[in-house]
Amino acid sequence: MENKRLKLVQSFIGKPFSGSPSPFGKWLYGTVVSVDEKSIEFQFTVRKEMTNPLGMLHGGVISSMIDDCIGVNFMVLGLENFYPTISLNIDYFNGASVNDTVLVKTELIKLGRTIINFNALVKNQNTERLIAKASSNLAVSELKIPF
Amino acid sequence: MENKRLKLVQSFIGKPFSGSPSPFGKWLYGTVVSVDEKSIEFQFTVRKEMTNPLGMLHGGVISSMIDDCIGVNFMVLGLENFYPTISLNIDYFNGASVNDTVLVKTELIKLGRTIINFNALVKNQNTERLIAKASSNLAVSELKIPF
Amino acid sequence: MENKRLKLVQSFIGKPFSGSPSPFGKWLYGTVVSVDEKSIEFQFTVRKEMTNPLGMLHGGVISSMIDDCIGVNFMVLGLENFYPTISLNIDYFNGASVNDTVLVKTELIKLGRTIINFNALVKNQNTERLIAKASSNLAVSELKIPF
Amino acid sequence: MENKRLKLVQSFIGKPFSGSPSPFGKWLYGTVVSVDEKSIEFQFTVRKEMTNPLGMLHGGVISSMIDDCIGVNFMVLGLENFYPTISLNIDYFNGASVNDTVLVKTELIKLGRTIINFNALVKNQNTERLIAKASSNLAVSELKIPF
Repeated sequence: MENKRLKLVQSFIGKPFSGSPSPFGKWLYGTVVSVDEKSIEFQFTVRKEMTNPLGMLHGGVISSMIDDCIGVNFMVLGLENFYPTISLNIDYFNGASVNDTVLVKTELIKLGRTIINFNALVKNQNTERLIAKASSNLAVSELKIPF
Repeated sequence: MENKRLKLVQSFIGKPFSGSPSPFGKWLYGTVVSVDEKSIEFQFTVRKEMTNPLGMLHGGVISSMIDDCIGVNFMVLGLENFYPTISLNIDYFNGASVNDTVLVKTELIKLGRTIINFNALVKNQNTERLIAKASSNLAVSELKIPF
Repeated sequence: MENKRLKLVQSFIGKPFSGSPSPFGKWLYGTVVSVDEKSIEFQFTVRKEMTNPLGMLHGGVISSMIDDCIGVNFMVLGLENFYPTISLNIDYFNGASVNDTVLVKTELIKLGRTIINFNALVKNQNTERLIAKASSNLAVSELKIPF
Repeated sequence: MENKRLKLVQSFIGKPFSGSPSPFGKWLYGTVVSVDEKSIEFQFTVRKEMTNPLGMLHGGVISSMIDDCIGVNFMVLGLENFYPTISLNIDYFNGASVNDTVLVKTELIKLGRTIINFNALVKNQNTERLIAKASSNLAVSELKIPF
């Protein structure tokens, strides 16, 4: 079976993922760096509106980048049913400033029928420091993915 | 000592927190419902740009609302030093649709010198269902809060 | 339908749960304080063999008490299928010494068909301080509970 | 400065860590496989008293093995001050049966002055399957390590 969703994301490698079906994903405005079923990489540029009171990338936006990339990695698995996120655990290590480039890399750890687990790493490509790491579980639902 | 930050947030009760020093907090556009040192409540309206590919409130935006409200609750503690978030663990239970009203309530669990811990609950006020719950740890830094 | 497992645990209120089908649960040697489908409470006495190098209750034993009590709370739900634990997130706040009495209280947060979520609180009854809090997700399996 | 604690653990490579200053660590009875400041590996044999009601390795014992190994990895860092565990997040994937051999591998992710973060992986060496993964944060205290 052809994996249309994987092909769609692959067609955006090197470009902003403007074909994203996720309105908030479009707000994050990530560029596709690499994508396969085991792992994807997206790059984001820190904008002023993404910052916290200290002028650093907001922890909520970091968690959003992680959650959105895990969502893309789930989508390219080519499954019929939707698996909503049931848990997201993030450890934060370092910050990022406006205009810094942030790389999010996901990794498929377990692909079960009921539960799918991903790791994610977030790196600041300007400072080469680790911004955050995360683990997330998704659980099967009866909802069919409509695209 | 007067707690200026607490007074600032209290002055916005019933109104959008337009005085937020957090650019991303302004994007989330929460209304202050209640605030003291032990707990704060903010209401958010789900906008289209906050949604995932299925048209539901994006998990990253849910985590952002939580992280931002915990940040506000930390700020109103009136401490001198900044405590960055070091961990955020979220369990997701139910969704929210465009135009739904979402209530985030934080609760101070531990106020230590090194570590501060908060719980958070997110409720959909249209469906009365629990959207998510979270636990977050903040750790002391040498940075002074500049406002 | 009669809930045999609930009745079994209730028959041990005020006594060590020597009828536990869990060999490691027996090693923990908890006393049943209260039990219903929404919440259970167990008391444990800290023994020397439960301590870490500093002579305090070992973090692993704290997580074990939590996991075992959540397991009992799951069992008294009276479900047919086994739901293995898929995630356990613990925040630690304070310690306990040898001979201290520790109370673990679980709370059923979500009873879904696929996912069940519990909170747990651990208190030191000698110091009245909170030792830890936890959130745990269990996910449905095809295995029938054999008792 | 000589790192006495690292040397002690290294002297037990290939043997049960009978020199552990952790009473509960002795109960777990792990064998030291490898040890340096960045990572340690311990092997454990599943005993009947470590099992849950279904006869599988108890989730609490899995978390205990993880927490104890992270404690050893912390100890071999050679620091003066004790860093108690403040959070432990575990995802469970597969089980282990009595007499199975379980390998726990820790990895130092961040060595900060205030916070130290470790990852851990738990593998069943009989089935070659991943049993669990974990992330844990430790936070500095004023307590000096007394050995």
